[in-house]
Amino acid sequence: MGLLRHIHRLNAADPSAAHRFVVDGQTMGLIHDAFAAHLAFYTKVFAIDDRQVRFVSGLNSSEARTGALAEVGHDLARRGLIGRLRGEIYPAKNAFHDPAAFYLDRTLVSYLGLRAYGVHVNGFVATPDGPWLWLARRAPDRLVEPDKLDNMVAGGQPAHLSLRDNLIKECAEEADVPESLARAARPVSTVTYHMETTTGHKPDCMFCYDLEVPENFIPRPQDGEVASFALVPARQALEMVRTTDAFKFNVTLVVIDFALRHGLIDPDVDPSFEALAAGLRAGDQPFT
Amino acid sequence: MGLLRHIHRLNAADPSAAHRFVVDGQTMGLIHDAFAAHLAFYTKVFAIDDRQVRFVSGLNSSEARTGALAEVGHDLARRGLIGRLRGEIYPAKNAFHDPAAFYLDRTLVSYLGLRAYGVHVNGFVATPDGPWLWLARRAPDRLVEPDKLDNMVAGGQPAHLSLRDNLIKECAEEADVPESLARAARPVSTVTYHMETTTGHKPDCMFCYDLEVPENFIPRPQDGEVASFALVPARQALEMVRTTDAFKFNVTLVVIDFALRHGLIDPDVDPSFEALAAGLRAGDQPFT
Repeated sequence: MGLLRHIHRLNAADPSAAHRFVVDGQTMGLIHDAFAAHLAFYTKVFAIDDRQVRFVSGLNSSEARTGALAEVGHDLARRGLIGRLRGEIYPAKNAFHDPAAFYLDRTLVSYLGLRAYGVHVNGFVATPDGPWLWLARRAPDRLVEPDKLDNMVAGGQPAHLSLRDNLIKECAEEADVPESLARAARPVSTVTYHMETTTGHKPDCMFCYDLEVPENFIPRPQDGEVASFALVPARQALEMVRTTDAFKFNVTLVVIDFALRHGLIDPDVDPSFEALAAGLRAGDQPFT
Repeated sequence: MGLLRHIHRLNAADPSAAHRFVVDGQTMGLIHDAFAAHLAFYTKVFAIDDRQVRFVSGLNSSEARTGALAEVGHDLARRGLIGRLRGEIYPAKNAFHDPAAFYLDRTLVSYLGLRAYGVHVNGFVATPDGPWLWLARRAPDRLVEPDKLDNMVAGGQPAHLSLRDNLIKECAEEADVPESLARAARPVSTVTYHMETTTGHKPDCMFCYDLEVPENFIPRPQDGEVASFALVPARQALEMVRTTDAFKFNVTLVVIDFALRHGLIDPDVDPSFEALAAGLRAGDQPFT
């Protein structure tokens, strides 16, 4: 057990065993060889050789690629080769402020191994004994990590919303946080990782926000994502990350980042401090 | 101008134009080719071939290496090939909690391109309009970066002291901070970089601490390192980092890290947020 195991687990991807997804000369994703074989079926959309997947030469605008991928997505879903489409549109880009090379349904993102962004909100109460964190328990019917502990609010970053507007939306939907309070959230870090799942690569970047909430504020589940909320000392949350697998896989890193920034890990005492600080951004350059 | 230029400037090292310093099979440093030629003079200490510098096979203990290097250091200083020895003993290691492979005078560290550690203390006053930072102006007679702005307290990390004890010592020496207050400093991050200077490589790691001080606390210069102190809004300090070269080279990164952690950079507004968060740890793995 220990904190570093989460860093290692979330950065165990093996880029050598994958097709590169190359767009405009830039590697944007990593695709499992087996899935690349499915993509080879769509010869009017993809050109595949030398373990690289590219759009065919006619598809050189964001609009054309987006349209072609939408058709491919529907067909893959119909044939049962990917999970059901979610209707959430994500942009394909290697840096958050880059223009989108194209747009695609959220479900396709991990099959193509594209970088995805999310917002995570550490809702906390300041006390004389240090911060307490509001943790969400994910609903038992969630597709991903049911029943696991989560940040008070977290969500993927869809296209056409600012991070702040997405945060305000997710705050309202998941925890009944009023907009006036959500606006007080402060951007404080990014946490990046590059993991591999059964579907593909996941080189993700989470924008983390700290939101100090009043002692009398109580988050309430709204949209079915969260079963319940609990307020625990941040030190206790960190110990749970260290010694259990009670947290959603990537939320472990957000809790470690919070604990580190708030002085709850002492580099004189915990020999992993240096490796943790480095490891929280281990996914910064997934494709080099 | 801009914030990212500091990240780029402090990570512009070119490891390909250097000898590797290999100890116990591990690359621990990078040595300019010209300086490696000087080391070749000490055939009883160093074996050099294939652009690698190693200790000769007889020198396989920390004690034996430390003794041999002390003699080499004195001889190099006597011959005018390095600056004067400082009498501060640094450990050679690639991670803070590793055992020291050997010890050496601080002056030799950059010629051998070893990783060095330091502690930097962000002394700040919390106000309703955000944090204000106490900045030091370095004395005009300093060898390194005279007259430049510095953190309230900062110092290299010598051997045989904990980070906390070094912080308390530097707080007293540089800014007359009482031990009771210095103990309230919270470890919050590391900032790493890998730069090159005229003497050699500098793959450094700074342990950063935030120290909230009372409004009526005023730091006072003690040991001649600091000429004066000034209290400025952290936002203003960040703007000075962005638009001027008033800060000591590596303090720029510590101020950016402070501003980022305290919510003073908005990722919706500043497109460099993501690259800054990644770049503040760009020196994590200097030798791979």
